Amino acid sequence: MIEHNLQHTVSLLTRTPAALNALLRDLPESWTFRNEGENTWTAFDVVGHLIHGERTDWMPRARMILQFGEARTFEAFDRLAHIQERQGKSLGQLLDEFAGLRSENLGELRALNLREEDLARHGQHPALGVVTLSQLLGTWAAHDLTHLHQISRIMAHQYRGTVGPWKAYLGVLQCAGHSAP
Amino acid sequence: MIEHNLQHTVSLLTRTPAALNALLRDLPESWTFRNEGENTWTAFDVVGHLIHGERTDWMPRARMILQFGEARTFEAFDRLAHIQERQGKSLGQLLDEFAGLRSENLGELRALNLREEDLARHGQHPALGVVTLSQLLGTWAAHDLTHLHQISRIMAHQYRGTVGPWKAYLGVLQCAGHSAP
Repeated sequence: MIEHNLQHTVSLLTRTPAALNALLRDLPESWTFRNEGENTWTAFDVVGHLIHGERTDWMPRARMILQFGEARTFEAFDRLAHIQERQGKSLGQLLDEFAGLRSENLGELRALNLREEDLARHGQHPALGVVTLSQLLGTWAAHDLTHLHQISRIMAHQYRGTVGPWKAYLGVLQCAGHSAP
Repeated sequence: MIEHNLQHTVSLLTRTPAALNALLRDLPESWTFRNEGENTWTAFDVVGHLIHGERTDWMPRARMILQFGEARTFEAFDRLAHIQERQGKSLGQLLDEFAGLRSENLGELRALNLREEDLARHGQHPALGVVTLSQLLGTWAAHDLTHLHQISRIMAHQYRGTVGPWKAYLGVLQCAGHSAP
């Protein structure tokens, strides 16, 4: 098993809501409500997706591993559920909601007081097969980063013309690291 | 000329230091002082690079365009100067320095009170040839985003093993949008 420092994972998870808040709150909608073309997401959509993960993915799956091990398969994560999460809400509301849910979830994670042997426990992913609690919690942090990466790319995309010939120097405009939407 | 809303550019430029601060300050060094392999940067290096840009790139070039137009070529931007910028400093110090310099530069930009016709003025880039002030200022914002994109990728790279089979779902781990370092 790859060594996993849970405190480092929690450090990152703790910071993401404030980082997104500092970046996105009250930013003009030309940055936050535009996407990269058909069937792609806006920064606003991404925050809705992160909220859905807090509600249905990370801690529910962690609890399932601790309670049932491999005996019960995780619910599939609905990658389009952000459409419901965001309904009728402002970006500011979504940012507040994400921060609140994350904070609750991290409180619950701390209360579990996980030990090394807990992190090694197995669960059953509907597509990936057997995974460990350690991998699930590491993925929670890396998932924040993949969406920060995506948000910076979505926003840069809005300036692909504005930058003129500098386009050649801006790696983000050549990024092909797209997640399935 | 592509329409350029300077207020939107300034909105983004204003937020980047706080976003990086929220993400990086006091984060364990296993996130911030590791790179992606030989001849690549750490998150700490990137903040040093952003500081160097505030000192020598964006506003000095803007002033040069307004004063000399195409008659004087910009100084080439030293992409390795962050090594000097960071010498003997902590990440917290670099984050403070970046925030201070950015705030000064934006104050100076506002004081220029640029009009539409100023944004269309030409300058001479040592490699790209003729560029406009609009393109320079748009690139300042997109450059923030390319480095936020890079930082999220550098940090995710540290968890490429920790996430186990979820690697396949994390776009950031497949990113090929690397700037020249």
